[in-house]
This record gives sequence, C-alpha cells and structure tokens, in this order.
Amino acid sequence: MSQQVDLLMTSICLDALSAPMAADNVGPLSPALCVCVCVCVCVTDRTLVQIQDLTPAKADQLVWLRARVHTSRAKGKQCFLVLRQQQFNVQALVAVGDRASKQMVKFAANITKESIVDVEASVRKVELKIESCSQQDVELHIERIFVISQAEPRLPLQLEDAVRPDGEGEEEGRATVNQDTKLDNRVIDLRTTTSQAIFRLQSGVCQLFRDTLTNKGFVEIQTPKIISAASEGGANVFTVSYFKTSAYLAQSPQLYKQMCICADFDKVFCVGPVFRAEDSNTHRHLTEFVGLDIEMAFNYHYHEVIESITDTMVQIFKGLRDNFQTEIQMVNKQYPSEPFKFLEPTLRLEYTEALAMLHEAGVEMGDEEDLSTPNEKLLGRLVKEKYDTDFYVLDKYPLAVRPFYTMPDPNNPKYSNSYDMFMRGEEILSGAQRVHDAQLLTERATHHQIDLEKIKAYIDSFRYGAPPHGGGGIGLERVCMLYLGLHNVRQTSMFPRDPKRLTP
Amino acid sequence: MSQQVDLLMTSICLDALSAPMAADNVGPLSPALCVCVCVCVCVTDRTLVQIQDLTPAKADQLVWLRARVHTSRAKGKQCFLVLRQQQFNVQALVAVGDRASKQMVKFAANITKESIVDVEASVRKVELKIESCSQQDVELHIERIFVISQAEPRLPLQLEDAVRPDGEGEEEGRATVNQDTKLDNRVIDLRTTTSQAIFRLQSGVCQLFRDTLTNKGFVEIQTPKIISAASEGGANVFTVSYFKTSAYLAQSPQLYKQMCICADFDKVFCVGPVFRAEDSNTHRHLTEFVGLDIEMAFNYHYHEVIESITDTMVQIFKGLRDNFQTEIQMVNKQYPSEPFKFLEPTLRLEYTEALAMLHEAGVEMGDEEDLSTPNEKLLGRLVKEKYDTDFYVLDKYPLAVRPFYTMPDPNNPKYSNSYDMFMRGEEILSGAQRVHDAQLLTERATHHQIDLEKIKAYIDSFRYGAPPHGGGGIGLERVCMLYLGLHNVRQTSMFPRDPKRLTP
Repeated sequence: MSQQVDLLMTSICLDALSAPMAADNVGPLSPALCVCVCVCVCVTDRTLVQIQDLTPAKADQLVWLRARVHTSRAKGKQCFLVLRQQQFNVQALVAVGDRASKQMVKFAANITKESIVDVEASVRKVELKIESCSQQDVELHIERIFVISQAEPRLPLQLEDAVRPDGEGEEEGRATVNQDTKLDNRVIDLRTTTSQAIFRLQSGVCQLFRDTLTNKGFVEIQTPKIISAASEGGANVFTVSYFKTSAYLAQSPQLYKQMCICADFDKVFCVGPVFRAEDSNTHRHLTEFVGLDIEMAFNYHYHEVIESITDTMVQIFKGLRDNFQTEIQMVNKQYPSEPFKFLEPTLRLEYTEALAMLHEAGVEMGDEEDLSTPNEKLLGRLVKEKYDTDFYVLDKYPLAVRPFYTMPDPNNPKYSNSYDMFMRGEEILSGAQRVHDAQLLTERATHHQIDLEKIKAYIDSFRYGAPPHGGGGIGLERVCMLYLGLHNVRQTSMFPRDPKRLTP
Repeated sequence: MSQQVDLLMTSICLDALSAPMAADNVGPLSPALCVCVCVCVCVTDRTLVQIQDLTPAKADQLVWLRARVHTSRAKGKQCFLVLRQQQFNVQALVAVGDRASKQMVKFAANITKESIVDVEASVRKVELKIESCSQQDVELHIERIFVISQAEPRLPLQLEDAVRPDGEGEEEGRATVNQDTKLDNRVIDLRTTTSQAIFRLQSGVCQLFRDTLTNKGFVEIQTPKIISAASEGGANVFTVSYFKTSAYLAQSPQLYKQMCICADFDKVFCVGPVFRAEDSNTHRHLTEFVGLDIEMAFNYHYHEVIESITDTMVQIFKGLRDNFQTEIQMVNKQYPSEPFKFLEPTLRLEYTEALAMLHEAGVEMGDEEDLSTPNEKLLGRLVKEKYDTDFYVLDKYPLAVRPFYTMPDPNNPKYSNSYDMFMRGEEILSGAQRVHDAQLLTERATHHQIDLEKIKAYIDSFRYGAPPHGGGGIGLERVCMLYLGLHNVRQTSMFPRDPKRLTP
C-alpha cells in the first residue's frame, strides 16, 4: 500500500517519496493501481501531454497527462470519462481487459467529478467523430490512473449548467445557474469555457493597451491608491483607517497622472484598481474596477489626445479580432452577439450633433443637459444605424456637466474640451483637456464652490510650469463586457465588488 | 497685443484663437515678440523637434521646439538659456541683433526657471564642446520665444541641488536636498535626471516581468483589493468603511491567485498595489507598494516554480542590463554603485547551508530561527564573496517561521517547501509551495491557532480539486532600489506611502 501512496504523493511533491501518509487519506485508491517505486523515482522525467495536442498524429502512442474528470459514466465493464484541461477535453475509456482489472474500472467510476487525475493511456483514432469533445478524432484507452486531488462529491454547481444559454433545454427541465450562485462559487464557475475565454481575452486587452502605448512612447507609472484627501470632493469615496488618522481610496489616478505630466514624463499610462463608493446596483457599476488610464501632454490641440486614445482602442479591437477569435466564439456560444464594429479613423461627433440626432428621434432635452443612460443607449443605436459603428467619441460636452478641472471651450463658454467614448451605446471612457493653469483652475474651483483649501496640493502642482495636457480613464471590465456583447459587468470582473458583494 | 496673446493661447488650445484674454494674464510678454495671426492659424502644422535630435546634422536649420527653461543667465546684450526636455538639454542664446531686440533679450532673461517655452531658433555647430549640456556639439540661436506656461519665481527646490551626490561641493557651500523636501515637492523632484531614469527603468521592470511570463504561457489576472476578511489574520491590515459594514485592504493577492489556479488558469501573474498596515519606519518598508505576483500549478516538484521565478528575474536583469544602460549610468552619477551581478542558473542555497555559513562567520542562531535583517545582509556579503552573485534563492525555510498555508517538507517536518529570494542581501520575494489539500490546510491552521471560521472561504477553495501549486510575491520598489544599488525604497516609489507620509 505504501508504494502507491508514495506515487500519489510524488505528484504533490517529489520529496514526499519517503513521507508516511495515513491510509485513510488515500480515499478510494484501489490495489489494482499499485505500481513500483522505480516509477516514482524517475517521475520528474515524465512528460505530460496537453489535451489540445491529442490528434490522430499521436495515434497508438502511450502518453501521460494530468486533467480534471469532467464527466464519468460507468457502463458494465467499461467506464467512460471525459478529461478536461481548460476549454479542451477528450474522451477516455477504462475497460476490463489486459490492462485494467475490474477493480480499476470500479475505482475509475468512483472518481468524483472535478477531481484531478494523472493517467497513462494510449491514444486511439476513432471512426465516428466525438461531437461532445474538443478532441473529436481520438480517444484515450487508460492503462493507469491516479487521483492527484479529489473533489468533494457534491459540487455547488454543475459546469454544464453554468455554460447553458438562457432558455436552452428548458423543456427538458435543464437548469441554468443564476449569477449569484456562479459568483458565490467562482472557483468552479471560472473553470467553464465561457469564463476561461472571457478572462483570457481580458488579459489580452491589458496587454494590447500597454503594448500600443509603449510603442507610442508612453511610460507606465504606478500611482498610490491610499490618498490623504478626496480629490473630487468627499462624495462616493471610501474611507480607510490609517494609523491614527483617516485616509481615502483613490477614485481615479488622475491627480497623479497629471503630476507625472507636470514632472516631464510627457505621456503616461497606468493600469490599476479604482474605487467608487457609489451605492449603484446596476449592470454596469462596480465599487472596485480596473482603470486603464492615459494622460499626455499635447502640442497644439487636445484632439491629439483623442487621436491617441481612439487609436489605442482601435489597436485593441483589431488585436482581439485577429488573435482572440476562439475566445470570442466560445463566449458567443453561450451569449450570442453581433461582431463588434469600428471605423478607422474613429467617428467623432460633437455634443450638439448628438443632441440634434436625439431631438430628431423625439427626445426632449436641453442644450446643457447631460445624457441620461437611456439616451446614451438610444444615441448608440442611432449612431449604429447612421454610421455602422459600435465605437465612437462624443466631443465637446457642456461645461456645466463636467468636473471643475475640465478646460472650457475657448470658442463657446457653454461647452468644454471634454469627451466620452462609447461602445455599443455605453460609456467606457470619460476624459478631457485639463486646466493646467493654477489661476484658471482656482477660478473654476471657486465657480464650483469647492473648498480651495482641500485641493491646494492639486492646484499647487501646476505652479512650476505645466504643459497643456489631457487624458482619460477606461473601465477594463466595461470594455470586455461591451466588446463581447455581454450584459453584466460582473461577468467580466473575476471577483466583482458591488455594494452588496464583498466575497469571495 | 491681442495677436501675441492669441499665439500664446494656441499652445494651450487651438480653439483659443478667438478667445479674449485679460492683458494682466500675459505676464512679462513684450511687444518684441509680436507675430502675425497667420502663424497661429497654421500652427498645428508646425513640427516640434526633440532636443536629443539636435546634432550637427541639423546645423543651420531653423527649428521649433518646446522645452523647459533649465537655467537662464543674462550677460550684457545676450541671454544664455539652457533648455531641457527630460534628461536632454541644449544651450540657447538670445542676442541683440538682426533677429532679436533689446526688449526680447530682457524678456528672455526674465523668464522664470522651469517655465515651458516654445522657441524658434537656428541650430549652430559650436567649436568647443558644451560640457554642461547633453547636446555638446550645437547651440541654438533663438529668433522667437513664447512662454507656454510660466513657473512661479521661487522654486521649493533647485534641480541641480536635487541631483548633487552626497558630499560633493560641500566646501563651496553647495546644497543637497533632503529626502522629505524632495518627496514634498515630488512634481519638481521627478524632473531630475535621476528620477526620470529611475522611473523609466521601473516601467521597464514591469514590462520585462509581464513579457517574460506571457511568453511562458502565464495569464494576467486582476484581483480585488477590497476584501471581506483579513486572510493572514487581523494584524497589519487596513480597515475600510464599506457602506454599512467594514472591509479590509488586501495584504497580498495570494488567495485570489490561488483561486485562479484552482479555477484552471494554470499559471497566473498580477501587478498591483499591496497594502501593509505595519508601523515600520525603515529604509525598505512602505505601507503601499506594487506587488509583482506569480502563482502556478506544477507537475512534480515545487522547484519548477522556483525555476520559473528565477528565470523571470534573470530575464529582467538581462533586459535592464541590455536596454537601460543610459538610465543605470544616470542614476550611478548621483548614487554610485557596483553593477548588479547574477548567475545562470540562479544560485539556490538551502537554509541549513546558509546557517552553516553564518555560524562559520561567528553568528549564533538556532536551526529553526528566522534570519534577522542584519544576518540577511551579512549572508548576502558572504554569498557574494563565495559565489560572486547579487541574486540568490534561499530554500527550505524552517516551517515554524512560515505562514500556515506553507507546505511542510515531507522529508523533514522541521522544514518547509518555501523560499525567499535576495538582491544585494535584501529580501525581494517570499514564496512557497502552498498546501492545496483542504484537510491538511485545516490541520495546519489549527496548529497555528487560527480561527477556522475566518478562513473558511480560503479552505473551501480547495475542496473541488486543486492541483499542487506554488508562487511568490516580488516587491517592485525593492527590486528597483536594489538593482540600482540605492538605499531607500522611497526613491523608487513615485509617491511613497509610509506610516508618516500620505502626501502628495
């Protein structure tokens, strides 16, 4: 008995070879699996194959692999398993015969779903495609199987339920899993093909964002999240106990990005958490999200900033389209949506043009009024109809609806040099040319009735020479949600935080 | 007068052309600078050159550039300026003659240091190298000069003082700037050649870290910073008011990295803020720092993890050595240090070997005692002498000095499958194989007298099949400090946070 225990432990730690282990830890291991210690000693030389590499080219080879037991079905003297690695899976068979005993088939049949196993198996070409697996042309004939990590028998959710499109199989009484159950059991939910695809694509968005900006000469910066004063006023900010005093969590890295511009870094970006203490329980609000932030000095016109940002977005869209089709298709299987459309160069509409479109569609709103969420969505549809794009910039917002540090439009004091960007009719970025003159900034803050004492450090940053500059902050989770045509930002946040959710 | 004001404003915003501006905003602008509006209209077509591109190849060309006034010195009918862009600077001359009036020289002489100016100038080759500038072979003869942003006349610190090596020029009464003054005025301090180099190199470290891991098949993840329970016990954790309840700031992304491993992401990394409410006022502690975190499943031995991490560090060291020599040299000018040495493969010492070296050097300490900071430093010197490396791994720490989730060494229960990594004798990474079995984890937690109820979610993560895995967390600021041979981690944090500093 001690021998097979040893081998089991080698998978946990080679040093375990001589470690004693209580027999009751072993679980349903059967003597049929007993192998000699010589295998264990050289076990680190063993090459494990990837399921995605199991093709007819490997036919009749004996391979080792580590995988999860996705499903298991015993049938007389045989046990059919589906083994899974991320989005790839393969059918595997244990059958009573030369290589496997009756006990071994029974052992295999008893392995709980989601357990991790090491198997030695020969690869066999199949006549009939196995439609239910990613590897359709081969199956595995298992000769040895070891449990590396055993899952508890009752799973809080079934993976096949978690990826079922809404409504599908309802007549047969098939279940789907509601969002809270998924999020409560995120470790399991993240194993689904849909989740794997979403977060691999999200990793791609971050990489494309950074690579594009690095190529443009931007420098990555790290900005503090614990700050001494709430830069945008005291509302919607989380308070932190900081030794004998109080501090706040940064609602955006904006002040620090701007300080870097004033410190001659010229063009900067940062990727990091942003905190909003808003009690908003909507499909698109999180209390903590990842900000993709940009700030840059410009030479003559803030449209230089808009162009840098829109080009970055276009590079992201192209990168996703060209390199993440598998992930996009995988998400589409569960959540069908139209491919994301964008133009080059990006469409830029002025606020007044947008208002005219909305007026024409029957919307009544004033010139200096902000867009409501339904009106943003309606505008998105109108723009899509007219210009066939899911991405556009809305430029020159009314000054009255923007923060005090926004540069007024010098041609029309009712408007400002500020912009939002939209994907599928929802805002993903807010940005502007910033006031870089301490005196004008003081005037604007006074106009907004902001306590000058509280923003002294901010204003002082511009007293020693500051170039004209602008930027914006992009919400990573929103970009992923809207690019994929999903309908809830919690689907694109690994461990979402909202007013009601702090776990896991 | 309105014309030159217009041009001044074009640099702020092209739309400003027709914007009125109060004359008293104009500052010391003189009529000698008057230019016609036609220049303004086509001003966005103007190409601005970079100072680093000003070489004899551009001799006798008329160029436009935007730069800071680094120094200014009037001398009779001439005014010598040094114009600066980041670490590059060039001498510029305004002299009474065909192109410049007496008033213009006076105007130039009155521009405050650190102001941002646009100048039109012809590039002239010089006979004698200008030793004090980065562009030693040319100077600029200024024909027009405009103030884009005026600095206040009294700077809180002088850049030349801020980059002076300690002790240099003491006899002449030359000042250096103490660290608190630098940090209090970070917007100016970050403009120095030393700071520019440090943070451009830091940006490089992040990029090298991510690129290396991406190439190895790692996936980038984003983990939440606001958490519901303090995973490593309640000590040293910041509390956040979260709507009607309390939450904490994550002391590390470890639980979330591990959850991703349990969720089949296989190999993950993340770059983000880490919060420690330690009242440690040392050269190497911050209350908020940037963690470069790694976690990965392994096949047979946790040394697979050590190899992945050390190889990543080696790729970072090589990338810095090969691509950041300019920055390294620039920092060395102010803070001389020996080049950073490393071996391939990385030296791995076991804890018992390190103890033997320390014992031999006369240190008295027990087998299961943790290393004190002075002993770590001494060990670093001993290792450097014996192996000629500034980077090494210390493996197999005593189990007693590591957290409860550390995998015990199966061969010797006094030790553990855990490691620290050191640069120039200081710890930059702490890591381990983690216990991935819920039952063993429960036993270890109980042994450490940890309230099981508080870590229930953590333990539950491992109940549904978890592969053997390990990882570690690297402190970005420490890596930069120690690679460059600096002596205070506040030098490599743009906006450092410690128990006494929350601003800027």
